[in-house]
Amino acid sequence: MICGMLPTIEWRDDAVVMVDQRKLPEQETYVECRSARDVARAIRNMVIRGAPAIGVAAAMGLALGVRRSRARGAVRLAAEFHGLCELMAASRPTAVNLFWAIDRMKAAFSEAARAGRSPAEIAEVLVAAARRIHDEDVAGCRAIGAHGAAVVPEAGRVLTHCNAGALATGGYGTALGVIRAAVEHGKQVAVFADETRPFLQGARLTAWELLRDGIDTTVIADGMAGPLLREKRVDLVVVGADRIAANGDVANKIGTYTVAVLAREHDVPFYVAAPVSTIDLSVASGDGIPIEERGERELTHIGAKRMVPVGAGVWNPAFDVTPHALIAGIITEHGICRPPYAESLPAACAQDGDGAER
Amino acid sequence: MICGMLPTIEWRDDAVVMVDQRKLPEQETYVECRSARDVARAIRNMVIRGAPAIGVAAAMGLALGVRRSRARGAVRLAAEFHGLCELMAASRPTAVNLFWAIDRMKAAFSEAARAGRSPAEIAEVLVAAARRIHDEDVAGCRAIGAHGAAVVPEAGRVLTHCNAGALATGGYGTALGVIRAAVEHGKQVAVFADETRPFLQGARLTAWELLRDGIDTTVIADGMAGPLLREKRVDLVVVGADRIAANGDVANKIGTYTVAVLAREHDVPFYVAAPVSTIDLSVASGDGIPIEERGERELTHIGAKRMVPVGAGVWNPAFDVTPHALIAGIITEHGICRPPYAESLPAACAQDGDGAER
Repeated sequence: MICGMLPTIEWRDDAVVMVDQRKLPEQETYVECRSARDVARAIRNMVIRGAPAIGVAAAMGLALGVRRSRARGAVRLAAEFHGLCELMAASRPTAVNLFWAIDRMKAAFSEAARAGRSPAEIAEVLVAAARRIHDEDVAGCRAIGAHGAAVVPEAGRVLTHCNAGALATGGYGTALGVIRAAVEHGKQVAVFADETRPFLQGARLTAWELLRDGIDTTVIADGMAGPLLREKRVDLVVVGADRIAANGDVANKIGTYTVAVLAREHDVPFYVAAPVSTIDLSVASGDGIPIEERGERELTHIGAKRMVPVGAGVWNPAFDVTPHALIAGIITEHGICRPPYAESLPAACAQDGDGAER
Repeated sequence: MICGMLPTIEWRDDAVVMVDQRKLPEQETYVECRSARDVARAIRNMVIRGAPAIGVAAAMGLALGVRRSRARGAVRLAAEFHGLCELMAASRPTAVNLFWAIDRMKAAFSEAARAGRSPAEIAEVLVAAARRIHDEDVAGCRAIGAHGAAVVPEAGRVLTHCNAGALATGGYGTALGVIRAAVEHGKQVAVFADETRPFLQGARLTAWELLRDGIDTTVIADGMAGPLLREKRVDLVVVGADRIAANGDVANKIGTYTVAVLAREHDVPFYVAAPVSTIDLSVASGDGIPIEERGERELTHIGAKRMVPVGAGVWNPAFDVTPHALIAGIITEHGICRPPYAESLPAACAQDGDGAER
């Protein structure tokens, strides 16, 4: 049984607990966030990362913040809550799931406040809402896996970039959920994981969680995807997403665009797997997606050791945009969206239930 | 004045001295090789790397080996010398300059032996031959630079991969020689250097040597070349080569092929800069070039720290092949070879003097 359940994030009554993803696989240590501010910091510092996981963390962080508030009365509490929402929204700019989760928590707050609930009752409403976001995320990943497994060949060799796994979600994973589901369906899947510089999510996180499930995994440097595809060692590429524009352009971890260009060059289908909460219909195309640039140190140093000489410039965009024309399909919990995405994505977003192809 | 002269490799009467490229830029330490075996080990362990530099090192190593031999008589010495040639040839398989340099040293040895020279005299002949290879390499790099500078725009933004600089040659560099020459011609050149996993030659070596010459250098992770090219921040790509087949296919550091595909996708000219000693007319196409696969540890560890979990597979090819169709020109010391390479490359190899375009 492939469970894909990892201690990515957990709600406790007085804390949000996360495995510290900066330290895996060498150390499995946990960070206890005891305030909304702690959670926002954990997101910013990449203790937790991955668009769906960031959404879950933000929701839990807001619930925690309201639960620990000493505000008397709903008006005071609302002011505090909105401050916490702004704090959370400022943690990272690209993954839209963050803003989606904040919006859901805002709606839950407003409804409870309008119903005249007490601060303590509102807090319990928010805790329940955060837990629901977490549960729905896991269920969504399993549905993504079920839909996506169909596109994985019987003896499928799958290339993935970054980590769109249990560690990037509430559990099970999106791109890695597709792989897990294919394995659960009895397929013989071999995975190639781009190491994914600079943060090495592929080498450290994807390899770690797939090996825990006994799935054959080979790590390559990002520059090796070219000859790997050229030598026909890959049947399929599957990656996650941080934000999907209305036209199907996908922002995902830096390096994804390069893999997509190589996949097209070698006629290998390139899929994106993501929950509909990653789709941002308010953004027309990838040009409208804000791309976070992170600090130099991620590139200049490895641990305490300086690799890049002092004086060199560094460019460190954390994400890039893959144009929709390079994407064979976007696998959501409501089915696989196919081109034209301007039609299939809104349909998937509008749907509550389940579908196969759209 | 851009001199590009770095302590890559130096002949001393009793030793071959090299800067340890594994430790740059943090430490500038030197390895003294006191035997041919030491030199072969230094090549294998990448104390020195870069196709032309490997050729120079091999030549100096053979001269050193013969100089230190206690063999009496030319026959005994010849047997020893051929053993040393085999040792040297087994150090690394892809860079053809290694075999070219060994062949030149063999020819020098044979000529001296046929002329009835004593072992001591043969040793001096080999020392002179090795020094000539070194000097010719530097002169060749300067000629490559002079030819290549013409293709660099006045305010040229150049992307390079790995290190094809003074550290990869006897001095001045091939791809970086083109950049140095453009700067010497008064052009405002800004360089983007792929960090070049796994060995980080770009981050560590290219940035280090360009900054020493005051050239504006920005380091990016390999996966960032995609958006860099997509956002039109690059006018030109120039890389080195480890072996060039008769049809113009180029083996170079892993990741080069990916950059070439991206450059073509964005209509940015992709040039290769290499001395004619890198051209191997005996190999019809890139399929015939042996690609070295190196140990796992280059990928699994960074320093002493394990990044890839135990149990994961690793694929670590050190080079890839870029098909000639992606290459705008091959800049040699005898001029810029253009397609069809099956004609222009043999012409460049046959030529002793200087030309511009062929």
